[in-house]
Amino acid sequence: MRFDHAGIATDDADPLAELFAEAFGTPVAHEETFDDLRVTFLDMGNGYFELLEPVADTDGAIPRYLESNGPGIHHVALETDDIERALETVRESGIDCIDEDPRPGAWGHDVAFLHPKSTGGVLVELVEH
Amino acid sequence: MRFDHAGIATDDADPLAELFAEAFGTPVAHEETFDDLRVTFLDMGNGYFELLEPVADTDGAIPRYLESNGPGIHHVALETDDIERALETVRESGIDCIDEDPRPGAWGHDVAFLHPKSTGGVLVELVEH
Repeated sequence: MRFDHAGIATDDADPLAELFAEAFGTPVAHEETFDDLRVTFLDMGNGYFELLEPVADTDGAIPRYLESNGPGIHHVALETDDIERALETVRESGIDCIDEDPRPGAWGHDVAFLHPKSTGGVLVELVEH
Repeated sequence: MRFDHAGIATDDADPLAELFAEAFGTPVAHEETFDDLRVTFLDMGNGYFELLEPVADTDGAIPRYLESNGPGIHHVALETDDIERALETVRESGIDCIDEDPRPGAWGHDVAFLHPKSTGGVLVELVEH
């Protein structure tokens, strides 16, 4: 599997996207609203930052994360060509999955999150484009 | 700038490296002890996980992070061909630097950390190989 993106929880994606573009040369590659989140992908050339900004006053992983931890790095995503097979390998390695099956994610990708208690405190997302 | 690595704070790098190699296909690319840390780079093909395990009972950013947050994602590193120029660009964008000048990092790289208060709570490291 390859690096796909670092997911960043933020209260205000626009100025952060602008700052990162200016400071790090990472332009916006894709934007959409998905699952009560404004999702902005910034292109690093070999992967992305994924800015995640809540847009509704609903419960959810990112609002909860922001409330507990403040803004910052939320997860790391790995890209795979076959997410079903990747999930099998992951399970065989003894890792617990948050998503037992792939589900639709932003940008039309299939995604599955793994349980950070199984992966050294690192929230890992698997992504198939 | 391109993605270089995701830095992971851990109390026990060996089993985590073994688990990630098995589950994600990320073999160990480099290991060393640097600055009271055991540093293990795992190869994702287009970047690395950098596992950071304290090996001495000294004060330092990683032991403090582990005490406050527990194990998990500590920082994201971006690779640049010219870290001096990258630091200038970053400063011109209004970002505060933890390291005003590049300093030696693990694997013989030059590194500089930026202040997460300037970058949406994300601890960003610049790296020149």
